[in-house]
Amino acid sequence: MKFAHLVIAAAAGLLGAAAPATPPVPASGPASAPAPSMADILAAAPAADWQLLDADRLLVMTLADGHQVLIYLAPAAAPNTVRNIQTLARANYYAGTAIVRAQDNYVVQWGDPAGDTPQAKSLGSVAATLKAEFDLPQTDALYVPLAARDAYADAVGFWDGFPAARDTSARRQYLAHCYAMVGVGRGETADSGTGAELYVVIGHAPRHLDRNVTVVGRVIAGIEHLSALPRGTGALGFYEKPQSGPAITSMVLASSLPAARRPRYERLATASASFAKLLASRKDRRDGWFLQSPKAIDLCNVPLPVRAIK
Amino acid sequence: MKFAHLVIAAAAGLLGAAAPATPPVPASGPASAPAPSMADILAAAPAADWQLLDADRLLVMTLADGHQVLIYLAPAAAPNTVRNIQTLARANYYAGTAIVRAQDNYVVQWGDPAGDTPQAKSLGSVAATLKAEFDLPQTDALYVPLAARDAYADAVGFWDGFPAARDTSARRQYLAHCYAMVGVGRGETADSGTGAELYVVIGHAPRHLDRNVTVVGRVIAGIEHLSALPRGTGALGFYEKPQSGPAITSMVLASSLPAARRPRYERLATASASFAKLLASRKDRRDGWFLQSPKAIDLCNVPLPVRAIK
Repeated sequence: MKFAHLVIAAAAGLLGAAAPATPPVPASGPASAPAPSMADILAAAPAADWQLLDADRLLVMTLADGHQVLIYLAPAAAPNTVRNIQTLARANYYAGTAIVRAQDNYVVQWGDPAGDTPQAKSLGSVAATLKAEFDLPQTDALYVPLAARDAYADAVGFWDGFPAARDTSARRQYLAHCYAMVGVGRGETADSGTGAELYVVIGHAPRHLDRNVTVVGRVIAGIEHLSALPRGTGALGFYEKPQSGPAITSMVLASSLPAARRPRYERLATASASFAKLLASRKDRRDGWFLQSPKAIDLCNVPLPVRAIK
Repeated sequence: MKFAHLVIAAAAGLLGAAAPATPPVPASGPASAPAPSMADILAAAPAADWQLLDADRLLVMTLADGHQVLIYLAPAAAPNTVRNIQTLARANYYAGTAIVRAQDNYVVQWGDPAGDTPQAKSLGSVAATLKAEFDLPQTDALYVPLAARDAYADAVGFWDGFPAARDTSARRQYLAHCYAMVGVGRGETADSGTGAELYVVIGHAPRHLDRNVTVVGRVIAGIEHLSALPRGTGALGFYEKPQSGPAITSMVLASSLPAARRPRYERLATASASFAKLLASRKDRRDGWFLQSPKAIDLCNVPLPVRAIK
């Protein structure tokens, strides 16, 4: 197969793909030392730069076809909503829910296909309404700033390892709707989202949703089992028959699974020196394929590496 | 079904979805007049604000399953490459090519699964190499500026109706890698892309590719037949067996089709008053569902409406 040479460039994917092993071609000036690839930087990262993911924050969604999707929750940004989702997961609320919506360049959403609330299922301990956590007071705890221009916010960065933004005049901070981020479906009122119905971003970042919904985490593995679903043909990408989307066999916390079946992952700490190196290498592309370095990066194009622990 | 109320918001999709018909809830201050929805603005747009698409610039891709994907070419931004693609289409080069790559949050790519060049197929009139058209001199012809901050460029706008950016110090102008934009696969050298192998963006805008490849147009209909393909499991999302992706039965210019089978579309002119109204309504979201208006927009979130002519 000869098409392997027409690769365009490696994407800033969830786990990232190695850059082609070719000499760098700087945009101008004399040849400089070869730039390390993303794979080089990750391979060289010391163990201390990786953080073990907390099994109480790791949701394991199993689809009817057996595929798994892993979601890491963000209690720092949405403490009450994450607690409610953990309660729902422990009560096995999500078993028998389904993918109900797949809207191209936007979101895939799941919930009870019949629209039954947790209350209807006699999960009395779960709130019928929940105070919105659209944003929280600005805090430097767990926050790593990113030097990047942003179309929507006056400052951006990473909050507890998730893409985030700030309204510095109002001193508020919130997670950003980047690809793979997970949010809470809601109705017209701010308190109408409980976490019983969730969505994940599968297209260009719909950042206009920021501060309009509670964002609770990020898909860290298996997003292709959601993003490649056939699009719904109803309004807003809803499936016209509730059964058109795959059923969700279960969505539980990794900590609820027997040790042998518990996925174990770690992520590169955004406060680490290795992450800073990775970021620099993605801002100034000097891989062989690039002829012009962007010398810039968008918040949502920054790779957030994770890896399974063998 | 009760889930219809958990809609999140309508996406800035290719054709756009109507906003829910509910009263606006401004983020603060007294209630103001209801904001017109995207559907309202498009319905009210006078005929003069719509432009008929040129059948010589409209590529009609037909997949083996019968689905069609329409691509509108951008000769203003890439005159020589577009001419080469038109030559390839008229010579029926693309019949029997296939989708060879689907990389999540990045691109879907197509070409000859065996890697045969047009030359190998005895299309002698097609250049083996083609001078890159990564950017062109800055021009105000067909250009409509957009007032928006951008992570990558110092100025952005629309060039001949396509999302575009400028390097104002170098006085260069180029199309931007937004969702649905189509570019030319190339190897390591700038002149190695001929248009025989093309890709479309199916994820968050990989704007670091800007000025590194020749961008030739945009998918205006049917992108869901590409964006929802199963992802390739090989490196960079290539299918490990060339036959894993759907075959392309044909990709020809609309002008080559018999009149009865020729798709006829028009697009909202970016220089029109209706487009300005649409843009304003997307920057300041006052639909019922929004509780906080973004008061901003990203270049790649601006809807570029098209409609079929009945």
